[in-house]
Amino acid sequence: MRKVAILGIGQTKVDEHWDLSLREIGGNAAFAAMQDAGMEKVDALFVGNMLSPLVSAQNQLGTFFSDWIGLWGREAVKVEAACGSGAAALRAGLMAVAAGDVESALVVGVEKMTDKAGRDVTAALATAADADYEVEQGISFVGINALVMRRYMHEYGWKHEDFAPFSINAHANAMHNPFARLHEKITVEKFEKSSMVATPINLLDASPIGDGAAAAIIVPADKVVSVPGRPRITVAGSASATDSIAVHSRKDPLFLSAAYQSAKRAYEMAGVGPEDIDVFELHDAFSIMSALSLEACGFAERGQGVRLGLDNEISPTGRVPVCTRGGLKARGHPVGATGMYQVVEVVQQLRGECNGTQVDGATIGMAQNIGGSGATILTHVLKAE
Amino acid sequence: MRKVAILGIGQTKVDEHWDLSLREIGGNAAFAAMQDAGMEKVDALFVGNMLSPLVSAQNQLGTFFSDWIGLWGREAVKVEAACGSGAAALRAGLMAVAAGDVESALVVGVEKMTDKAGRDVTAALATAADADYEVEQGISFVGINALVMRRYMHEYGWKHEDFAPFSINAHANAMHNPFARLHEKITVEKFEKSSMVATPINLLDASPIGDGAAAAIIVPADKVVSVPGRPRITVAGSASATDSIAVHSRKDPLFLSAAYQSAKRAYEMAGVGPEDIDVFELHDAFSIMSALSLEACGFAERGQGVRLGLDNEISPTGRVPVCTRGGLKARGHPVGATGMYQVVEVVQQLRGECNGTQVDGATIGMAQNIGGSGATILTHVLKAE
Repeated sequence: MRKVAILGIGQTKVDEHWDLSLREIGGNAAFAAMQDAGMEKVDALFVGNMLSPLVSAQNQLGTFFSDWIGLWGREAVKVEAACGSGAAALRAGLMAVAAGDVESALVVGVEKMTDKAGRDVTAALATAADADYEVEQGISFVGINALVMRRYMHEYGWKHEDFAPFSINAHANAMHNPFARLHEKITVEKFEKSSMVATPINLLDASPIGDGAAAAIIVPADKVVSVPGRPRITVAGSASATDSIAVHSRKDPLFLSAAYQSAKRAYEMAGVGPEDIDVFELHDAFSIMSALSLEACGFAERGQGVRLGLDNEISPTGRVPVCTRGGLKARGHPVGATGMYQVVEVVQQLRGECNGTQVDGATIGMAQNIGGSGATILTHVLKAE
Repeated sequence: MRKVAILGIGQTKVDEHWDLSLREIGGNAAFAAMQDAGMEKVDALFVGNMLSPLVSAQNQLGTFFSDWIGLWGREAVKVEAACGSGAAALRAGLMAVAAGDVESALVVGVEKMTDKAGRDVTAALATAADADYEVEQGISFVGINALVMRRYMHEYGWKHEDFAPFSINAHANAMHNPFARLHEKITVEKFEKSSMVATPINLLDASPIGDGAAAAIIVPADKVVSVPGRPRITVAGSASATDSIAVHSRKDPLFLSAAYQSAKRAYEMAGVGPEDIDVFELHDAFSIMSALSLEACGFAERGQGVRLGLDNEISPTGRVPVCTRGGLKARGHPVGATGMYQVVEVVQQLRGECNGTQVDGATIGMAQNIGGSGATILTHVLKAE
C-alpha cells in the first residue's frame, strides 16, 4: 500500500445553518480544504453522510457535491456507516489513493440535520440501530445508550456525577474552537442539574446535533512538497471493524470490541501503542462512550475509563488529552460529518494550530469514529513527520 | 494496483419477496457467492444499497449484513450512488483488495423495495435526482427520462416503436434466466399498446422495480487456484465518472458524458475497445438509456443507438449482445442491487453458464451501471483467462 498524507483540511462551524443549503455547507468545507492544500482540482470525491435521504430527500451525494464543486467527469461516491460515515469515507478515499487508482482525493463529511422537527431527527437517528430488533420495540438511539450507561454504573459502581469530567473538558476546550457549536463552560453542578433525556443520560451527557461539514485532501505521501513551518501529516494507521448491530446481541455490551479491534490494527499498522498517542479525538456522542472507548483502546482498564476524567488526565495538559476541540459534546455532532471533524482536529493539533488547547509537542494523534452503539468503529492514527 | 479476480458469484430471484426480510435477501445472495467461491469467511464486506433508509428505516447496512453473515470484527460499509450503488460498492471492494488492505472482499448489492406503496417508492426513487432543482418542480424520475426520450425522438427522427427491439430482446433473454422477475415474451404490438407512464415512456419502456440481491467475492488474481472447466475471471478495467446531477445542467442532455468517460478509462485500463466486447450488460432502466449507453460507449454513432436494435445486432447472436439475462427491463431493477446483477451476469457469460442466451466464445464482457439520469456512471470490463 502506498503511504498517504493529508495535504489540506477545511471545516464549517457546527450550528443551525438555516440560511445555508446542504450543497453550501458541504461545498464550503470542501473549498476550504482545497484552498488549504493549494489545489484547484482533485481526482476523486468521497462523501460521508448518514441522513440526507431522510432529512433532505437527496441521495447520490457524491455526484451531488462533485457537481457543485466543479469536478465533472471525476469519480464521486457516498459512503455510509451511520455516525461513522465520515471516517468510512476517509477510508474509501485512502484506499483509492493507496491502490494508485487516483493521485488525489477529496473527502467530505457533511450533515444537515436541523431542518426537520426534533422527533423526525430522532426517528432518523434510530436508523443507526437495528430496525427489526431494537427500534421496533420502541427504543430510541439515546435509549440504547442509556441502557449501556446504566449497566456500566451498576457493574462498576460509578455515580452519574463521575462522568462529569468528560463533558466539562469538552465544553472547556470548545471555548477555544471557533467552529464549535457550544461556547459555554459547565460545572459539575450544572452537569448534575441538567434536564433528563433518557435516564441516566441527561442533556449534558449527550452531544448536540447540528449542521456542518469537514473535509480533507489526501495524496500519496511522496507527492507532498514540504511547506515551511508545516509538518507532513501522514495516515500511519487506518482500520475499521464491526460488532453486531444490536447491543443485546453482543457478548459483552460494556466492551467495544470493534474499537478494540480497529485500534489494534491501526496501532500495528502505525507501529505504535496507546502510550505513544499524544492526542485522542474520541467519539463522545454520550459520556458513557468516552469511558468505553478509552478502555477498549488500551488507555484504561475495564470499568476504569471514568477514572481518567476524575484524575484530570484528559485535559490538553493531561496524559491522554481527548476532545481537545470540544469533541462531539461541545463542537457538536453533525452525525455523518463527525468523523471528518475529528480527523481535521487531529491534523490541527499535529500542525500546532490549536491555540488555547494545543497539546505540547503533539506528533502522533488518533481519531476514532463510531457508527451506531458501537457497531462500526473506525480508527485512524496520524503522524507529523 | 494489484490485479483482482472474481472468485464467486451469487444472486436471488428478483421478485416481490414479501416473505423475506432485507437481511434474508442480501444474506442469501452473499451465502451463495461464498459457497460458489468455496469460502467461509472474507476479510471485508461492501454493500451497495440506495433505499433502505427510506423503505426499511435501516441505515448502516454494511454492519447490518456483516452481523447477519457472521463477519463480526471485519470491516463492513455501505456505498451509495443511487441506482449505481451496486457497481460503486464493487469499486470500493476492488480498491481495498487492489491496495492490499485485505485479501478478500464480499460485495453485495441489495434492495428491498416492494414493501412500500407505489407512490412512496416513486418519491424514494426521486432522491436520485436533484431535490432542489428537479424534484422540487414536481417531476418524477420517470418524468426526467421521458423528457430525454422525447428530445431524442425529436432530434433524430425516431418513432416510439423504434425502441421496441430493446425491450423485446430483454424479455426474450429473461425467459432463460430463472432469477429474472418477468418471464413473458413481448411483441412490437404489445410494446406499442402498453399503458403510458410518462409520455413517451410506457410500461414496456420502463424496467420493473423489485426486491433482490446479487453478490461477488473478489480476491487478488494471483490467489485464484484454477478450477477445471472454469476460467479465471479478472477485473481488467474499472472506472467511475460523473456528470451534473440535474439533466438541465448538462451541456448536451442526449450525451451520457459520464458513460463515455468511465468506458474510455475502463477500456484503456483493460487494453481493449468496444470492438473487443463480446457481451455488454447495459443499464436499460428505460429503453432510451440503452440507446444512449450504446452511443456513449462507442458501439453506435450519436443518434444511432436505436439502429442496433432494429438491425438485430443486440441479441445473443448479434454483434453487440446486450441484456443477455433480461437486463433491467425483464430481469428487474432492484435499484441498489442492479450493478451487481450485471457483474454476476457477465461472469456467467464468461463462464459459459447462460444456457439459451449464451454468447458463443465470450471472453471479454462489460457491465455499465448508471446512478440517476446519467449522473454517476460506472463501467467494468471483465476478462476470462
